[in-house]
Amino acid sequence: MTRTAATFPSPITESRSWLAGTTFPPERPLINVSQAAPLAPPPADMLQAMAQMVLNDPSIHRYGPDLGLPALRAALAARWARLNGGTVSADQVAITSGCNQAYCAASASLCDEGDEIILPSPWYFNHRMWNDMAGITTVPLALDDTLIPDPAAAAALITPRTRAIVLVTPNNPTGVEYPEGVVRAFYDLAKAHGIALILDETYRDFDSRSAPAHGLFALPDWDHTLIHLYSFSKAYRLPGHRVGAVTTAPARLFEIEKFIDSMTICPSQLGQNAALWGIEHLDGWLAGEREEILRRRQAVIDGFAPLAAQGWRLLGCGAYFAYVAHPFEMASDILARRLVEEASILMLPGTMFTAPGDTGGQRQLRIAFANIDAAQITELFRRLTSYRP
Amino acid sequence: MTRTAATFPSPITESRSWLAGTTFPPERPLINVSQAAPLAPPPADMLQAMAQMVLNDPSIHRYGPDLGLPALRAALAARWARLNGGTVSADQVAITSGCNQAYCAASASLCDEGDEIILPSPWYFNHRMWNDMAGITTVPLALDDTLIPDPAAAAALITPRTRAIVLVTPNNPTGVEYPEGVVRAFYDLAKAHGIALILDETYRDFDSRSAPAHGLFALPDWDHTLIHLYSFSKAYRLPGHRVGAVTTAPARLFEIEKFIDSMTICPSQLGQNAALWGIEHLDGWLAGEREEILRRRQAVIDGFAPLAAQGWRLLGCGAYFAYVAHPFEMASDILARRLVEEASILMLPGTMFTAPGDTGGQRQLRIAFANIDAAQITELFRRLTSYRP
Repeated sequence: MTRTAATFPSPITESRSWLAGTTFPPERPLINVSQAAPLAPPPADMLQAMAQMVLNDPSIHRYGPDLGLPALRAALAARWARLNGGTVSADQVAITSGCNQAYCAASASLCDEGDEIILPSPWYFNHRMWNDMAGITTVPLALDDTLIPDPAAAAALITPRTRAIVLVTPNNPTGVEYPEGVVRAFYDLAKAHGIALILDETYRDFDSRSAPAHGLFALPDWDHTLIHLYSFSKAYRLPGHRVGAVTTAPARLFEIEKFIDSMTICPSQLGQNAALWGIEHLDGWLAGEREEILRRRQAVIDGFAPLAAQGWRLLGCGAYFAYVAHPFEMASDILARRLVEEASILMLPGTMFTAPGDTGGQRQLRIAFANIDAAQITELFRRLTSYRP
Repeated sequence: MTRTAATFPSPITESRSWLAGTTFPPERPLINVSQAAPLAPPPADMLQAMAQMVLNDPSIHRYGPDLGLPALRAALAARWARLNGGTVSADQVAITSGCNQAYCAASASLCDEGDEIILPSPWYFNHRMWNDMAGITTVPLALDDTLIPDPAAAAALITPRTRAIVLVTPNNPTGVEYPEGVVRAFYDLAKAHGIALILDETYRDFDSRSAPAHGLFALPDWDHTLIHLYSFSKAYRLPGHRVGAVTTAPARLFEIEKFIDSMTICPSQLGQNAALWGIEHLDGWLAGEREEILRRRQAVIDGFAPLAAQGWRLLGCGAYFAYVAHPFEMASDILARRLVEEASILMLPGTMFTAPGDTGGQRQLRIAFANIDAAQITELFRRLTSYRP
């Protein structure tokens, strides 16, 4: 078997293929809630700044340092310290070609063939796919209906081959925001076992809580245990430029640099400079973006009653995602495909976020609501409420 | 051991660290011939086009398809057919985040833990580094002083675990342009053994020969055997945007898509659109770029006589590189460090392109001359001619 044959095709790609050849009636256009990514471009003044960089800064078109622009590393370090408290320095931050690469590089600095990483299930599918391709054994941590992982249950899964536990908060696919105490308990667990806590905060800027989601950067020697992942794609609408970050110990970044050098050499220079411009100029704008996402989240919660009356359950809702359980005697992957044809709705089934045979995943669906407004949420729920398979 | 601990730090990064704390006398400034990448920005009309894309095309800022922009895939397929002859279709081309990623993804579609890839030595160090990190055993194919790999010698290295042979032509680090018959013999060898020929033509646009370097795209079922790699960084001065390509069978690209999806999701959208603009508008400009590189190549060849008189040998010269043997009783990595301090010259030693203990590599140095003009080449050779360790 080859590395790539060890895993499954991207669910995003697969779900897009469901649309091929399907036509949607004019009175019932497609509602696509399959992927979580900004569709609108960055704000106009940022676009102007980026155009000027393209025209006037020759370094934009050259290779940059493997671990990213020093100014961006410093700015992100300062941002973490400002937002979460604690101490983060530029040499604890590396910039990556998107947050997926940050995960891949981090896991390569932790694991060898056959080592284990604990992933709460449902998981972010690219984590599972990369583990499969890297020869890392994924150890699923099952969740109850709260969708909040239990440190004691994770502790029972740790073996001599365990290298890390992964937490994504706010979570993709479930939308659940993990309580600060839970994050801290996982950190303590990882530290006690000498393994890493990989904390993916791709959606941190859309957390509904006003207090920091964690205070890990204030703990002594936090960088021995914590590997923090971030994406600039959501905050500044830059998915097409592929800019993410990993924050951890400099000695680990020395290892990660080998991986980045061999894979992509450096991240997009324009993307990095745009991200830096965003950190320097867009705090107020980003606060407004968050407010809009929180309004959509509230529209999901407020509008769910008719669906609940039909037996649907809202399991989680936050950041870009609602995670729901359907009431039908049907596996979610079958249901998802039928919803394309019969209700002009594209959303991903729980089976795409869980191991085969996971009965929870067979009842669940992810609604990526970030790109639809309150009126479209109402229409989505109207269609689901009246849907009978 | 972890994946990253299984390999060495990037030679580029390491050699840059030699410069830290070194000051160069005003009358003898640094001549940096360590890295092969354009330093000048793309031509002005391309920059204008890119700025307009940033301002006016929202898709630039969104995710694109994992395997790249359909229009760029089609344009590159047409370019190969036009330049090399044969038949290449858009679904045989994928766009990657630089050519390194193309190699990584291709090898993941070929190999599992412990499988083997044959690399002519000296090799492109990132190929070796990725093999180390992916659990692929690198089988070195030793070269004689012609620096042209011998198919019969490669045949003797093939085992049941062999998955591919890699050729880079024009070669990095040696600058040697492989004869068409050699490339074809390696293709036939790979095909006969049911393994892949990975043909990296990153520097193809600077080949000194007027005839196509190979006619592989015209062979029946070429995509079963050939995995062709390319970079847009050199031709259109886009290294900071990370755009490369892999051309092979659609079924292999289906596998490669899993890797790209999990690693970077998609290449930079701006970089891809710029590459497309380059294919559509820059043929004439690129021909001029090639002429300039060939002038520099000729300046190296013409200027080498005084060095030859001192016992230096010019082993290879083409594309961006000259590969030389020094006359001193000293390992090349020691010499390279001393040349920084004693002659203000930064170039990479052969030890960075060969396995430890390879006695050839200990005599060799790579001169990446693409970024220095004829006058600087003269000055470089003047310093080397008078250098005594």
